[in-house]
Amino acid sequence: MRTFAIVGHLARTDGTFPLEDLPGSAGRMDLLCRCVRASLFLSHGLRRDAECRLLLLGPPDPPRIIRFSGERVRSLSPDERSAGSLIRRALSIPAGDLFRESTPGVEVRRGTLQDMMEGGPWAVLDENGRDLRMVEDPGVCFLLSDHRDFTPEEEAMLPGIPRYSVGPRPLHADDTITVVQNELDRREGGWR
Amino acid sequence: MRTFAIVGHLARTDGTFPLEDLPGSAGRMDLLCRCVRASLFLSHGLRRDAECRLLLLGPPDPPRIIRFSGERVRSLSPDERSAGSLIRRALSIPAGDLFRESTPGVEVRRGTLQDMMEGGPWAVLDENGRDLRMVEDPGVCFLLSDHRDFTPEEEAMLPGIPRYSVGPRPLHADDTITVVQNELDRREGGWR
Repeated sequence: MRTFAIVGHLARTDGTFPLEDLPGSAGRMDLLCRCVRASLFLSHGLRRDAECRLLLLGPPDPPRIIRFSGERVRSLSPDERSAGSLIRRALSIPAGDLFRESTPGVEVRRGTLQDMMEGGPWAVLDENGRDLRMVEDPGVCFLLSDHRDFTPEEEAMLPGIPRYSVGPRPLHADDTITVVQNELDRREGGWR
Repeated sequence: MRTFAIVGHLARTDGTFPLEDLPGSAGRMDLLCRCVRASLFLSHGLRRDAECRLLLLGPPDPPRIIRFSGERVRSLSPDERSAGSLIRRALSIPAGDLFRESTPGVEVRRGTLQDMMEGGPWAVLDENGRDLRMVEDPGVCFLLSDHRDFTPEEEAMLPGIPRYSVGPRPLHADDTITVVQNELDRREGGWR
């Protein structure tokens, strides 16, 4: 299962943020919404072999993990408000230490970076990493940070994890996901 | 100048559409807003060497061309509403046969597909085209359609233009732009 996991350092953790202000009062939730889109959408349908996980670390009640399943999600459109609305609903139900479904294919739990990285093996997408195209087997599980770098505490939880870069210019997390999806599509389709 | 030109077959041509409903009543304006973002944004800044042109063909007063200059645009954030708001302002000024600036770096005129394709040489991004990675010199000007195919009338205006594909699975127009930008970045940066 292709898995993209994004750390949202400022992203709100209650379900009351306005969909009209995803970048501001919701804590750059716009970027996370676009990451969901880049992880799960093809031109005319969803990537059933993909999931997207978000770690929300903003106020008032962090940390929260939200998991979108490309196989099971319903009522998700590619626009930012659509993902934002499903995130808001996920944040409005009580969260425990196990995933609980808030809407079809969207689950939420209380959890840390380590909890989000269940499964794997993981690679970090990092502009200082090795060129992804040159990596023989990059795997299918990728961790990214939002517009901020990983904190020293987060870095300490990522020892020995390989780091890959998609190109010479720094891209938004959602663009990075798009480029990785395309590279994996090419390899699967024999276009390499 | 890297140039991405997108045909929005349903996109509204007045400045009154609600920013809360870019996919619906604005005629898939969400997709065009994301194309602006994919054309112009790096992680922490704008691509000064890029522009994005939109051809809006929806009601009530088509056709309109809107041009975003990465070099001159101001007050543009990566979220959909931000581009949508600048598009709305562009559509609220009178449009003639020459470009007129509505906000810094955003211009609008009345014009057709042919008018939008001033400059070039152009290539069409098309899932049935040649593999872009295999093309020695793909140029820097790319034409795309929105979620609909080009109409027969539009196709008739594109004779002999080369067609390139970015991969084996059909992508949204904005994702296609992201992959092309990455390919051009890699070539410029010697990462090929």
